[in-house]
Amino acid sequence: MIENGQLSIVGIGPGHFDHISPAALRAIQEADVVVGYRTYMLLVRALIKDKETIKTGMTEEISRARGAVERAKQGGKVVIISSGDAGVYGMANLVFEVLRDMGWKRGDSPDIHIIPGITALNSCASLVGAPLGHDSCMISLSDLLTPWPIIERRIEAAASSDFVIGLYNPASGRRQRQIVRAQEIIKTYRPGTTPVALVKSAYRFRQDVTQTDLDHMLDFEIGMLTTVLIGNSNTYMYEGYMVTPRGYHNKYQLDGQILEGQTPGESLNLDNLVNFAPSIEVQ
Amino acid sequence: MIENGQLSIVGIGPGHFDHISPAALRAIQEADVVVGYRTYMLLVRALIKDKETIKTGMTEEISRARGAVERAKQGGKVVIISSGDAGVYGMANLVFEVLRDMGWKRGDSPDIHIIPGITALNSCASLVGAPLGHDSCMISLSDLLTPWPIIERRIEAAASSDFVIGLYNPASGRRQRQIVRAQEIIKTYRPGTTPVALVKSAYRFRQDVTQTDLDHMLDFEIGMLTTVLIGNSNTYMYEGYMVTPRGYHNKYQLDGQILEGQTPGESLNLDNLVNFAPSIEVQ
Repeated sequence: MIENGQLSIVGIGPGHFDHISPAALRAIQEADVVVGYRTYMLLVRALIKDKETIKTGMTEEISRARGAVERAKQGGKVVIISSGDAGVYGMANLVFEVLRDMGWKRGDSPDIHIIPGITALNSCASLVGAPLGHDSCMISLSDLLTPWPIIERRIEAAASSDFVIGLYNPASGRRQRQIVRAQEIIKTYRPGTTPVALVKSAYRFRQDVTQTDLDHMLDFEIGMLTTVLIGNSNTYMYEGYMVTPRGYHNKYQLDGQILEGQTPGESLNLDNLVNFAPSIEVQ
Repeated sequence: MIENGQLSIVGIGPGHFDHISPAALRAIQEADVVVGYRTYMLLVRALIKDKETIKTGMTEEISRARGAVERAKQGGKVVIISSGDAGVYGMANLVFEVLRDMGWKRGDSPDIHIIPGITALNSCASLVGAPLGHDSCMISLSDLLTPWPIIERRIEAAASSDFVIGLYNPASGRRQRQIVRAQEIIKTYRPGTTPVALVKSAYRFRQDVTQTDLDHMLDFEIGMLTTVLIGNSNTYMYEGYMVTPRGYHNKYQLDGQILEGQTPGESLNLDNLVNFAPSIEVQ
């Protein structure tokens, strides 16, 4: 019996070796073949210089996924890499789509392994403070594969229910109107002073971080390598840091003292919200 | 002039050394003092055995953050750890809240560093397939600090606009009704057959993964250590994997061939969605 090939779907995080997991590093080091988009392959070039590689361009995701599956099927260790987390708008779902199209069953070659990574939402947030202190969402503004009305409806839902919003793929050379429309929708629910961070190439050579607000975010360059972080109604700027509070001030003084009418370990008592500035109406 | 102390806010990922970043590892190794919740300190005990440590219980977040800031202010290298990403419902935002309460200004001791980690959404997703292939959100069901009506409104918004939903802190010993209500709300928008994964203690000793669906998710144990992943209307189960497609099938055949009426690199042409099963109505 011939041994199954191994296909590892690996997220390399933002792209700096300080932020790639040991499991991801090891998978790449032990691979016979490494498959990926050219830019990401450059980020890990020190690890792959003596290996067989399959590099493809940006719009060639399907052939990349299919190539990786077919190569792994033959045997050996194949790694397909994505930046960030391979599951988040990455190669993981596409590999499964291709496997299904090929009629692959569990037990068939290749075996599949998925290695998580730090996605842009988290790596970018760490560069600007603590914007993800409360409920957040990720929305891709790319309408190349998703009908724009669906994307718009998600922006509207997230804005109206006060999620912290992370926008992936906000714009590209020829795709500019989506971010304009996103700002317009979000502004109908949040003040123009809402903190916004634009993070380009987090932890990479040309890293660029801009702190701005909802009114002024379009005054800055927003492109393919930018992640846009938009605060919720409680997010504030403090000494250059963007902070979304979890809500400790609803229940405690910041020396740990409990507020009157509140009980530790129990649901927040809504009749005693002395420090509370309601962002959305509470019945 | 006395050198400023350093406070690093570090996310250790799911808790296994395979998935903690080199930057996080190094920060802990180089620290003079490590501060954290007991359980998380146990996860990194091999790294901290000769160090000064401040361990606190689960409801003592404020004193933990304050203790870390005050210790770092005196000088030396202090690390405060969270599991996952320290910015996601973690210690990062609370540290800033405490700093603000203390009147800290940039340039004052301590200097602040934030090191990102793999959050539960991503680590749990990697154990079940590729559920995060499209827009997703994180919602904490804990109403200890957040008014329940705000949480409920976010669940409703996410469900109605077809986000993949990751529920953090879904239940605890005394907090059981929130997950019941969440299921009820989501079921008004999605079929009972929608794939759901319950992931407990991802990459830790007692890891447990359950694949179920929206109708049956409450038949299984859901507790403090569980993350609940709920698919969107396009998520499917395939050979035991949970997969949310990005939408390549809207534009391409899975051999890479472009579909009639579609153009690579351009917005999806809504008049030619031959393979498209609309999840929410497209105008």
